[in-house]
Amino acid sequence: MDATPGRPSNQELMLEEILSDALNQPVSGEVANYIPALAMVNPNHCGIAIATLDGEVHTAGDADIPFSIQSVSKIFGLVLAMGRMGDDLWHRVHMEPSGHAFNSIVQLEWEHGIPRNPFINAGAIVVADTLTSHYSASKAAMVNFVRSLANKDDIHINQDVYQSEKIHGNRNAALAYLMKSFANIESEVEDVLDHYFFQCSIEMSCRNLARSLGFLANRGMQPGTGDQICTRRDAHRVNAILSTSGMYDQSGEFAFTVGLPAKSGVGGGIVAVVPNYGVICAWSPRLNQFGNSCLGMSMITRLAEKLGLSVY
Amino acid sequence: MDATPGRPSNQELMLEEILSDALNQPVSGEVANYIPALAMVNPNHCGIAIATLDGEVHTAGDADIPFSIQSVSKIFGLVLAMGRMGDDLWHRVHMEPSGHAFNSIVQLEWEHGIPRNPFINAGAIVVADTLTSHYSASKAAMVNFVRSLANKDDIHINQDVYQSEKIHGNRNAALAYLMKSFANIESEVEDVLDHYFFQCSIEMSCRNLARSLGFLANRGMQPGTGDQICTRRDAHRVNAILSTSGMYDQSGEFAFTVGLPAKSGVGGGIVAVVPNYGVICAWSPRLNQFGNSCLGMSMITRLAEKLGLSVY
Amino acid sequence: MDATPGRPSNQELMLEEILSDALNQPVSGEVANYIPALAMVNPNHCGIAIATLDGEVHTAGDADIPFSIQSVSKIFGLVLAMGRMGDDLWHRVHMEPSGHAFNSIVQLEWEHGIPRNPFINAGAIVVADTLTSHYSASKAAMVNFVRSLANKDDIHINQDVYQSEKIHGNRNAALAYLMKSFANIESEVEDVLDHYFFQCSIEMSCRNLARSLGFLANRGMQPGTGDQICTRRDAHRVNAILSTSGMYDQSGEFAFTVGLPAKSGVGGGIVAVVPNYGVICAWSPRLNQFGNSCLGMSMITRLAEKLGLSVY
Amino acid sequence: MDATPGRPSNQELMLEEILSDALNQPVSGEVANYIPALAMVNPNHCGIAIATLDGEVHTAGDADIPFSIQSVSKIFGLVLAMGRMGDDLWHRVHMEPSGHAFNSIVQLEWEHGIPRNPFINAGAIVVADTLTSHYSASKAAMVNFVRSLANKDDIHINQDVYQSEKIHGNRNAALAYLMKSFANIESEVEDVLDHYFFQCSIEMSCRNLARSLGFLANRGMQPGTGDQICTRRDAHRVNAILSTSGMYDQSGEFAFTVGLPAKSGVGGGIVAVVPNYGVICAWSPRLNQFGNSCLGMSMITRLAEKLGLSVY
Repeated sequence: MDATPGRPSNQELMLEEILSDALNQPVSGEVANYIPALAMVNPNHCGIAIATLDGEVHTAGDADIPFSIQSVSKIFGLVLAMGRMGDDLWHRVHMEPSGHAFNSIVQLEWEHGIPRNPFINAGAIVVADTLTSHYSASKAAMVNFVRSLANKDDIHINQDVYQSEKIHGNRNAALAYLMKSFANIESEVEDVLDHYFFQCSIEMSCRNLARSLGFLANRGMQPGTGDQICTRRDAHRVNAILSTSGMYDQSGEFAFTVGLPAKSGVGGGIVAVVPNYGVICAWSPRLNQFGNSCLGMSMITRLAEKLGLSVY
Repeated sequence: MDATPGRPSNQELMLEEILSDALNQPVSGEVANYIPALAMVNPNHCGIAIATLDGEVHTAGDADIPFSIQSVSKIFGLVLAMGRMGDDLWHRVHMEPSGHAFNSIVQLEWEHGIPRNPFINAGAIVVADTLTSHYSASKAAMVNFVRSLANKDDIHINQDVYQSEKIHGNRNAALAYLMKSFANIESEVEDVLDHYFFQCSIEMSCRNLARSLGFLANRGMQPGTGDQICTRRDAHRVNAILSTSGMYDQSGEFAFTVGLPAKSGVGGGIVAVVPNYGVICAWSPRLNQFGNSCLGMSMITRLAEKLGLSVY
Repeated sequence: MDATPGRPSNQELMLEEILSDALNQPVSGEVANYIPALAMVNPNHCGIAIATLDGEVHTAGDADIPFSIQSVSKIFGLVLAMGRMGDDLWHRVHMEPSGHAFNSIVQLEWEHGIPRNPFINAGAIVVADTLTSHYSASKAAMVNFVRSLANKDDIHINQDVYQSEKIHGNRNAALAYLMKSFANIESEVEDVLDHYFFQCSIEMSCRNLARSLGFLANRGMQPGTGDQICTRRDAHRVNAILSTSGMYDQSGEFAFTVGLPAKSGVGGGIVAVVPNYGVICAWSPRLNQFGNSCLGMSMITRLAEKLGLSVY
Repeated sequence: MDATPGRPSNQELMLEEILSDALNQPVSGEVANYIPALAMVNPNHCGIAIATLDGEVHTAGDADIPFSIQSVSKIFGLVLAMGRMGDDLWHRVHMEPSGHAFNSIVQLEWEHGIPRNPFINAGAIVVADTLTSHYSASKAAMVNFVRSLANKDDIHINQDVYQSEKIHGNRNAALAYLMKSFANIESEVEDVLDHYFFQCSIEMSCRNLARSLGFLANRGMQPGTGDQICTRRDAHRVNAILSTSGMYDQSGEFAFTVGLPAKSGVGGGIVAVVPNYGVICAWSPRLNQFGNSCLGMSMITRLAEKLGLSVY
């Protein structure tokens, strides 16, 4: 059940204030432009949503406009693969932070094709490979999983983004072929990348993203439905990897200043898990040098400070 | 006040069981042998202590035998420097996880002599430099700080370890000179390393280490004395960096399996902070391939599972 | 014209002695086994040929048995591309030695997809791309070029090796896609790799390889035919790159002990250019740790010492 | 005996023309400024000398003004150490090109403290260590060796440069301590660096540098005196390493365009060995991005083209 319409809750007043502060900041950052379909988004969008464990969702701003979730989809892929593969998954991808981006490829080579963690591209491609191998129709399985988590049928991929990713995917192809040379990709590279680009192209709103990930804040049980999406132990584990590796090369700083498990995407979305409380999702397309949404970072930082949300 | 002598508490019964399980495991790991003084320790020592926020300390095994705290001292150095330098410190050392150890030196060069975080050697050496520059007698300041935190006067350094570290410190000298070439070391390298090796040579027992770090679990306030050692914000920050970077290249796995801010040292000690609950310290000299105590890891893992301590 | 049959020349007596010494050495090294088709070769083959500028060819041992020339083909590809592209080629591939193999991929990334030189795989793949783009049928152009250089029509590729290379080419695909992500591959990666694997699969004998490369020792003019294959300047340039980068990570040692421009392949062949004198080709399938033929190295080293061939 | 004064030789007319062409080029490059003593040199100096095997020296421009030979001194150190240590030297330093400068430190770590070759700083520091260990007064031995080679007593070090190097030598200290941590430095780091900075501070003119290295072009025998400075084999070997590694990260390009063994220094000097002909030395202080003298490069390139000097 969402928050009562008509009368803003205290949380919504706070969200509105935080949104308003964010919009009053000097404009900074750039919209992702490595593919044309992403570059065309209106850079001024800004929204935020909190889904709490009681099933309520509080929002402010553009919280109901779908955006390209991009790397946030790595959470969905990981949770789906953990459920299918169990602990065997961790022989094919590690769970260590990856350090600076510049050495991602040499690190992959140095560690014999085993990626550092499932939230760097190489790791998410291995996860995609396990799904491609497991399901006869992994893309359908993926979108159905997301729809069931969000309890919404009208979640779709953006075809322009999907096609665009495939055309500009040479670096990801390089990672996949390098891992295949170490026998850490089982399916055809083309199929694995097709799945990977598909899941990156899913579009969701702040409201739906926050709702869909509630189970991570609730020991694996989805707040709205009571479904046990994953074990309590696996919810802790996903949050742990998010904490050390979810925010690109700003993960340490995010832990330092905010102190919440979180994942960002180059579409400008950020989700942050507050154990035993709920899930925050912020969205604004302009990105800082690390690929994280500028206003998304500042809204979540502010909210965490106000509510004292740090897990540490 | 420590736990009532004579009658074991429930916690102590649990600690005894965990200790007993650990001692029944097949022996594995090797005592650190890069310096003779460390290699001579009895490898069969094993102890554990929990200092809770009510001021009690529960222990099992060799919890009162002092051991070389080594890299655990990096916490003391960091907290002391944060108090003296404020946020200027973060211009000289970052707060990001460092990835694989093999590239630590090239990463330092790549990032112009700014270490990734204060818990890798390069970062702790920068912290030592700030203390050497700030204090006319930084070694005395350091040991006094530790004594006051532990509320014990009989905390000392091991002279054999101290001298031994200085003789075998060529790699740390290489790091220090490289940072000095980037103007990120202010004092003489010799003085900075002297301070650094001094603090690594402090000896403390599990009991005293757990007690001394209680403020990190208590929003900066030392449980026994009520002293505000650091701000609540800085306690969160130290815990955040411990979570991403405290356990060498096993930090991600420790977050994944245990889910607590923690720091290990090659003397075999591990401290883990449980926010709003207390501090655990385990000690056993045999180390795994990452430099973390084998039995220390398994005792803390077991304890965290039993008590459901993960922050995630 | 080849050496007079029936009566061994002085050179042939010397070659026979060198061959005999090589065959009396303790067996060492391993046949390349990354693809089955290469692993099946008889490891005991051993042959040597010298083609001098007067058109004579002196041989000993298995000098007339065709073998897989593998990376020696990079010379043919380079010379063909230099003739077609002129100095524009050097905007797409550098001419510097590459240092240790382990960092080849990070170096490629660091230098924005421009390979260090045309004799590492990445560089040869760029060269193959220029040929694929230039010729409507680059594979036919390649084999025709080699046949005309050797003045022999019966030079063919080994179909088993060719198919085998394609199946095991994931690492080369990774390099190609990484370069394509930097816009340094123009054609489709699949087509470029097809050309590359095709040229690696050419089979030639020591006699024919030595004859075919005579122009490099003769200021660009082919000794037998008088054809100007490349400019004098380009012959010097190819020899220069061979000298610094032709023998994998043993190039420096080869310059140090032998002092001749040379190129090896994992089929066990080595060609060495002696400016103003001729071309040596040695073949024996067992490879040392660097991928260079064990007996090939020792025969050429011995010959260079006896005749005082070092260019330095 | 030097060229007859009063009447310019044909060679001198050619050198004058080459010098004049160089001086007419647009000014480019920057004087080395990492130490003040080097930065103060007049940037407009330009000179060239050729010492041929008949004992004559032809010059043009500022060929008699002493300059800081810097890394050219690595040749003297290497030849002296090869004579004292024999082939044992090559267990402590390799002979392979080093690839891109950026990874020099990680490469040193990766290869367990054995530098790639004696012409990178780490390699020259190991060579300095062998001299420091062998001689009770290695600095005096060094300067005496150079004086005897040049057959001149008035060769000195520049005290300002020497002191300046010591103050700005933190990066070299980092390399030395890293190698000491791998037990590849025997003497005290301070003493080794003192020797190293001393030899870098030797000042010589083009004329004297060219004369002093004649033995490298003459199979080890010094042209003027007939002294056998090293074996023929070792002269070839030094030239081989110069060819692959003497011109920093422009070594491959120098081989490609010039084709001569050569060594440069950040004082602006370059020496090039022409086997069986003589030694060229050019000097001009402005350096290109690789640390090689801009006008020195262009004068030697021109000269090599005119006389057809490439060894390839």
